[in-house]
Amino acid sequence: MYSFKNDYSEGAHLQILNALIETNMVQEEGYGEDQYSLQAAELLKKKMNNAHVAIHFLTGGTQTNMTAISSFLRPHEAAVAAVSGHINVHETGAIETTGHKVLTADCGKDGKLTIAAIQAVLDAHPDEHMVKPKLVYISDTTEIGAVYTKSELEQLSAFCKSHHLYLYLDGARLGSALASSANDLELSDLPNLVDAFYIGGTKNGALLGEALVICNDALKEDFRFLMKQKGAMLAKGRLTGLQFLVLFRDNLFFDLASHANVMAEKISEAVQAAGYDFLTPPVSNQIFPILPNTVLSELHQQFNFFDWEKVDEHRTAVRLVTSWATKEEAVDAFIESLKKKVTE
Amino acid sequence: MYSFKNDYSEGAHLQILNALIETNMVQEEGYGEDQYSLQAAELLKKKMNNAHVAIHFLTGGTQTNMTAISSFLRPHEAAVAAVSGHINVHETGAIETTGHKVLTADCGKDGKLTIAAIQAVLDAHPDEHMVKPKLVYISDTTEIGAVYTKSELEQLSAFCKSHHLYLYLDGARLGSALASSANDLELSDLPNLVDAFYIGGTKNGALLGEALVICNDALKEDFRFLMKQKGAMLAKGRLTGLQFLVLFRDNLFFDLASHANVMAEKISEAVQAAGYDFLTPPVSNQIFPILPNTVLSELHQQFNFFDWEKVDEHRTAVRLVTSWATKEEAVDAFIESLKKKVTE
Amino acid sequence: MYSFKNDYSEGAHLQILNALIETNMVQEEGYGEDQYSLQAAELLKKKMNNAHVAIHFLTGGTQTNMTAISSFLRPHEAAVAAVSGHINVHETGAIETTGHKVLTADCGKDGKLTIAAIQAVLDAHPDEHMVKPKLVYISDTTEIGAVYTKSELEQLSAFCKSHHLYLYLDGARLGSALASSANDLELSDLPNLVDAFYIGGTKNGALLGEALVICNDALKEDFRFLMKQKGAMLAKGRLTGLQFLVLFRDNLFFDLASHANVMAEKISEAVQAAGYDFLTPPVSNQIFPILPNTVLSELHQQFNFFDWEKVDEHRTAVRLVTSWATKEEAVDAFIESLKKKVTE
Amino acid sequence: MYSFKNDYSEGAHLQILNALIETNMVQEEGYGEDQYSLQAAELLKKKMNNAHVAIHFLTGGTQTNMTAISSFLRPHEAAVAAVSGHINVHETGAIETTGHKVLTADCGKDGKLTIAAIQAVLDAHPDEHMVKPKLVYISDTTEIGAVYTKSELEQLSAFCKSHHLYLYLDGARLGSALASSANDLELSDLPNLVDAFYIGGTKNGALLGEALVICNDALKEDFRFLMKQKGAMLAKGRLTGLQFLVLFRDNLFFDLASHANVMAEKISEAVQAAGYDFLTPPVSNQIFPILPNTVLSELHQQFNFFDWEKVDEHRTAVRLVTSWATKEEAVDAFIESLKKKVTE
Repeated sequence: MYSFKNDYSEGAHLQILNALIETNMVQEEGYGEDQYSLQAAELLKKKMNNAHVAIHFLTGGTQTNMTAISSFLRPHEAAVAAVSGHINVHETGAIETTGHKVLTADCGKDGKLTIAAIQAVLDAHPDEHMVKPKLVYISDTTEIGAVYTKSELEQLSAFCKSHHLYLYLDGARLGSALASSANDLELSDLPNLVDAFYIGGTKNGALLGEALVICNDALKEDFRFLMKQKGAMLAKGRLTGLQFLVLFRDNLFFDLASHANVMAEKISEAVQAAGYDFLTPPVSNQIFPILPNTVLSELHQQFNFFDWEKVDEHRTAVRLVTSWATKEEAVDAFIESLKKKVTE
Repeated sequence: MYSFKNDYSEGAHLQILNALIETNMVQEEGYGEDQYSLQAAELLKKKMNNAHVAIHFLTGGTQTNMTAISSFLRPHEAAVAAVSGHINVHETGAIETTGHKVLTADCGKDGKLTIAAIQAVLDAHPDEHMVKPKLVYISDTTEIGAVYTKSELEQLSAFCKSHHLYLYLDGARLGSALASSANDLELSDLPNLVDAFYIGGTKNGALLGEALVICNDALKEDFRFLMKQKGAMLAKGRLTGLQFLVLFRDNLFFDLASHANVMAEKISEAVQAAGYDFLTPPVSNQIFPILPNTVLSELHQQFNFFDWEKVDEHRTAVRLVTSWATKEEAVDAFIESLKKKVTE
Repeated sequence: MYSFKNDYSEGAHLQILNALIETNMVQEEGYGEDQYSLQAAELLKKKMNNAHVAIHFLTGGTQTNMTAISSFLRPHEAAVAAVSGHINVHETGAIETTGHKVLTADCGKDGKLTIAAIQAVLDAHPDEHMVKPKLVYISDTTEIGAVYTKSELEQLSAFCKSHHLYLYLDGARLGSALASSANDLELSDLPNLVDAFYIGGTKNGALLGEALVICNDALKEDFRFLMKQKGAMLAKGRLTGLQFLVLFRDNLFFDLASHANVMAEKISEAVQAAGYDFLTPPVSNQIFPILPNTVLSELHQQFNFFDWEKVDEHRTAVRLVTSWATKEEAVDAFIESLKKKVTE
Repeated sequence: MYSFKNDYSEGAHLQILNALIETNMVQEEGYGEDQYSLQAAELLKKKMNNAHVAIHFLTGGTQTNMTAISSFLRPHEAAVAAVSGHINVHETGAIETTGHKVLTADCGKDGKLTIAAIQAVLDAHPDEHMVKPKLVYISDTTEIGAVYTKSELEQLSAFCKSHHLYLYLDGARLGSALASSANDLELSDLPNLVDAFYIGGTKNGALLGEALVICNDALKEDFRFLMKQKGAMLAKGRLTGLQFLVLFRDNLFFDLASHANVMAEKISEAVQAAGYDFLTPPVSNQIFPILPNTVLSELHQQFNFFDWEKVDEHRTAVRLVTSWATKEEAVDAFIESLKKKVTE
């Protein structure tokens, strides 16, 4: 059965594996001071037209969020996240284990945070008997596949600055966000809009690896201490550095994300053509079609994917995830099955 | 310049990289529930003749120590380590960041813990105004390249059991320990002697990866929650699982460790032949010859390695580390340089 | 202006202060091992008909909750509390600072937790990617002055037992709860129904002090270590021990709570007589009448109390708190003002 | 049996208890915003000729150290303390439970830290693989009763400033230190020399209470959040505020400390007259005479005090502690017993 369950089912893009083999026996410094990590950091700075950001390579999203957020906050300060935010739900309390509360803000079905929702959290936390909201956590794409527009991000950024809040962007699926048709942001916009963010490699063709970009000077100091302390500094840091070098030396990172999005779009169009709706607009590599249970039971026999939520007695919203590795034949087969079932 | 600075200067054994390529496009479950991880765990249990241990794959030593120790201890309980213990010195307070004190016990030049030293710590912590020593941390090989004999480990094990202390063994360099001429332990002895230990992959031919083995039933519950919380659960858990599968499906893990030790032995013999002494007996892939500064200044021009400590005005103990990747030509060149300098 | 803002505006009942003076120069052991603390613990056990509970005296509610909950939970385990629960809102993240997430369960206006609400939290936390709900936190009276009936508490208790959840009761205002006309619980019922709870002294006539009662044997071990570690063990433990001895040697604790409730009831009756409603039924020493803003503006000129929430354009729910120290003349004056304003 | 075990065996000075009674029924704001706390803070500022320090009242030494140090440090930063430092030994890992390592520096028998010892710790922590020493913890008097001279403290202060280290002084027994014949510091010197310190009330006549003085502006922000979070903010903050008001409105604090020291001196003179030595020079309310075991066994039948350490087969150093409450008759009786035994 072909799987549309997630975007980390396969290994890594072959260019990455080949680069590992090519460089394998070169002796390098450990702990991220190898030439590949240094070059990758320089390359990313160039791609962002920004010489001042600090860049660190970590192994996964939870680790990156935990290490960064616990580095940025004082003990009484809290992160504000959407109810559906990854740090709130799916990281087994990694932020709390470092001592910080995650305050939840209301969000729509799409998982996007609004100024109004953040303001409501601020209003509810006026004094020292409560934690102090200090960092706003957003994800792009969100956990439900939505993307922020440049204007939305600019407004959040201005609001955070004026309220002395850090703005942190979880980019586990930043590739898919930037490659989305709904997107008008560029990678180089981000350092001007957020205090820190990370570029996800794991879900866009790497074996593992996230590139944390710290934009706010005040948050840069001693970050390598924090990485080591949280178990986030690989002895063979070359492994993550090299992968980002490969992903960004040409346009591979964006090409892979585009492929994922195109595959998702193809399915979305078929879903729409078949007359079905979506839980949220399909704009990235995660889409949430609402399908009749009769259709679903058949599709589940051929494909792996998650049922997301019951919409009514007869229909369920499902989550389909495409990736850099998604085979077009599999997408075609899925569409075929869908059509066949519909026309029955 | 060839480097004898550490055992993580190169990438990974080619069998591992080839296996990554072969399995690359197979779709697998995430988060360590892939077939490679499952098979590797089964394989390790067989190698240990022990069906009851629980096995988890993590990415590095600091992460493994932090995740395991913080899972095992209640808030007021402390780890006891040698003054030179890795958790005490070189993990940027990773144990403390999870809330636990590391109590230091005296140890000899070789970094080995003794019952007398642990007893002294127990004696100094009689009541609730002090932390409660609860876990004894040892490393094999130690940070200074020594190995525990079976008899020593049995005595430590009996002592810990009778004093309600957990015994935890850091096996970052367990390969080199088990392959040492000074060793009489087998991998299968360990589950009977310690409450938990890990088998180090990073320093013995893997890109990254440590296999934590939890032997004490009382310490197994919910460990995957702890892994996720500490950022130690890779989305592509296949990456670590597959590597351990390759390392243990034949004898590769032990062959690589033997190679490292043989290379070190070759240097040791040359050092002895040249009439020089060692800080501690050279029995593993880390050796600490004491060399005249005049010899050193020349060797440093051709090779990378660390000066460890000044022995007297004219002599310095250095650390030479060999590995699975060490080239015999480089070892020969080092020996040649040493001899040349001596005969001058 | 007389204050109905809270129940900790005054010092302590005179019997307590007199006992402090009487015993002042007796030399006692430190750290809670003095005769008064030991006697108070024995006395409380008798009052509960339970020789097996463990009793510890701490200084305040936040400290007691933090010390107890962090002692009871493993790192990945979470507390479940009502949205309005004190540990969720008003303790500046004290639970999170010890590493644990507070999961919120829906609750009614009265702040009481229901089985359905807890079940919903359990359903939303099925696996290791999320924290594990392990302890249910309730308060009696709740933060909004409601009390649990014996039947409600029995049902919660049975549910928690069958779901392997600890049930913890915050008794900051347990005196007022037990003295409430809506209550059918006795102090001696609690050890059979909850795993741990505390009897609040600070808000019922003591200078400071809460008596933590640990009922579940599995949670008792080494608790004094935890107290010391969290800064909760007073050198002069006699100060809290003696106060509980005075509060419980006769019936003072219950008499003081009754006085507080009677004072609140008197106001409630006047409010009802004047034709006004309440946010929640007035059953304890915290009542929440809904008053016209015109009435309020006048009352605020004579009395201190908090506006709780806007009910509509013309009316506001306020919080009035009475205590062991509330003077009946002040209550009469308040009622008088209310009547006067109404009849205008 | 009369006790010389510690300085917290009795309640509080009668002036304090009387003030509690006098002010008992005055309604005050909670959480340290009462008039007594505000007045006490102002009074202390005046006594220090320093309008800029921030003053907070907490309940005990461990709590004060934990709350302050965890507020001042980032996660990877460590405190440096003497091996005998209270935070290192006797606080059940309270600093570590907030995530920070306590690095130990060598110290003499007197428990005083030297620049050389701190420098050795700095030298041993050069990079991000180790914690970063950031705060130097000293106590005055030390745990072994010694006092720092002004010159010593000035040198430590200058060293810390030039090495970007915070200097923190634990003043649990600051009264005795300032009243010592070996002292040339004044209370008003401290804000110029340290970044923060606390004035101990518990061991100098209060029921409980320590006044934390934060001198460094950079460390003041949001401290009340930290207090609340650590369970250190009393609902009836008046209790600690009032006590410091009483202790400092006249000269009571210093009078009580002088009494304690004079009582200790009287014993010291008798010890010397009897021809016995001390472990460290007797200069405060803790003295450590070295007495023959034969003498000790008799004294132990009449008086309570701790044996501190075996000096040789026949002699033991003991700890005798006097306090604000020590009765001169008891001191005379002790001296009498000593003399009697000696002349036997």
